[in-house]
Amino acid sequence: MNLELTFLGTGTSVGVPMIGCDCETCRSTDPRDKRLRSSIHVSTPECAFVVDAGPDFRSQCLRENIRTLDAVLFTHPHMDHVTGFDDVRRFTILEEAVMPVYGLPETLEALQRIYYFSFNTVNRWRGYLKADPKVINGLFRLGETEITPLPVKHAKVNTTGFLFSRGGKKLCAYFSDMKEPMPDTVEQLRGVDTLIVDGLRLTPHPTHMNFPEALAFAAEVRPRQTWLTHIACEILHAREEQKLPIGVNIAYDGLKLQW
Amino acid sequence: MNLELTFLGTGTSVGVPMIGCDCETCRSTDPRDKRLRSSIHVSTPECAFVVDAGPDFRSQCLRENIRTLDAVLFTHPHMDHVTGFDDVRRFTILEEAVMPVYGLPETLEALQRIYYFSFNTVNRWRGYLKADPKVINGLFRLGETEITPLPVKHAKVNTTGFLFSRGGKKLCAYFSDMKEPMPDTVEQLRGVDTLIVDGLRLTPHPTHMNFPEALAFAAEVRPRQTWLTHIACEILHAREEQKLPIGVNIAYDGLKLQW
Repeated sequence: MNLELTFLGTGTSVGVPMIGCDCETCRSTDPRDKRLRSSIHVSTPECAFVVDAGPDFRSQCLRENIRTLDAVLFTHPHMDHVTGFDDVRRFTILEEAVMPVYGLPETLEALQRIYYFSFNTVNRWRGYLKADPKVINGLFRLGETEITPLPVKHAKVNTTGFLFSRGGKKLCAYFSDMKEPMPDTVEQLRGVDTLIVDGLRLTPHPTHMNFPEALAFAAEVRPRQTWLTHIACEILHAREEQKLPIGVNIAYDGLKLQW
Repeated sequence: MNLELTFLGTGTSVGVPMIGCDCETCRSTDPRDKRLRSSIHVSTPECAFVVDAGPDFRSQCLRENIRTLDAVLFTHPHMDHVTGFDDVRRFTILEEAVMPVYGLPETLEALQRIYYFSFNTVNRWRGYLKADPKVINGLFRLGETEITPLPVKHAKVNTTGFLFSRGGKKLCAYFSDMKEPMPDTVEQLRGVDTLIVDGLRLTPHPTHMNFPEALAFAAEVRPRQTWLTHIACEILHAREEQKLPIGVNIAYDGLKLQW
């Protein structure tokens, strides 16, 4: 196995169940209807990293027994994607250990505003996370995995998806938060094996793709398989999945994909 | 019943179990050894509020089925006490609803730095938390509960504990993060029924009371009962509790106290 991807969370910003909601999904006992905030863990023979670290980061790491982490990548700085940042420190408890943190300039600025103590290079106390900020401005590598950041349209904040390739093969693309691709996104994804894409709910949303939009995007990209993520409680897993075309499924927390 | 206090979390900043730790406590199956980040929920006939909202705020609210919240109080702005702030929005989903947020000036400044969109009064989108900042500068009331903020020494950041009284009776004092009381703290607590106090671990720590320090403080205050909180994984609940004096116990997540 060259690359294993684990869905740490597949929920929208408020998670599923939602506080105070009594809908069928929020009352569901199907474990696939329990969705922590969206994030993935990627493990390769050379290294391991996560995309995003929301408020559930600690419980996600415990659930999946994650023991090492070599980098953190961020799609964008919305709160449901960054507020677990402080808990990353458990992976850098050695006094001089630093954590490479990849993000767009606006994302790194937001992280530095919130977690200034991780970036100021003054506080070297071993209990604090020491971040090594890495501006995303094009393709980069982690071990033998080639990572292509792909900008997308999502709300007012600049947001990226990530394409993971190894040995020239496009294994998987991850777009947790997207309303629209850019004009060249479909072309860049040509030949990708697996597409993971924002499918918030059935009805339209101003900043996220709904199921019809995600399906239309998948039909253009034509991957072998598509997984929908960043799901709201409007989606009852068992009910909605059976309506999807062959090759398209709804992701769930703990799901693992391998290449 | 006039006041019910629920321990939403009783853990230190990294929680118990800790990511990557294989100690006896982190491997324990005793539910009392599963500690989310420290916070309490207080319910009275007139209103309900929480003290602190750390990263586990959403899962704590779901676990305790918390349906209404009238205010959020903060002890101090360390990350393990504030990074659930954005999830408070589920309690203010009406377009014009605002949430009173009580804190010392430094705490409110930190919240405004991180969650500027909740404070800028420009963004009135219903999905965003709209905070109504309330500077703590002396005794205040929520419903018929009188709340006395009591400054304590903890790290470099100004921190308060809270004394809750009703009808002239001092019911409970909560000090989740404290290294030392102020000179007049013991006098202010004279006659309190219940003391909840930082008892991080057995060994000394630069910014938290350990068990011996917490016990010495409790012996001065002489409440009817004392509960230790903000506990690290050095403390195995079953083993350490039996060593404590009569009237002193270790709190655990989900514990409820009533007056």
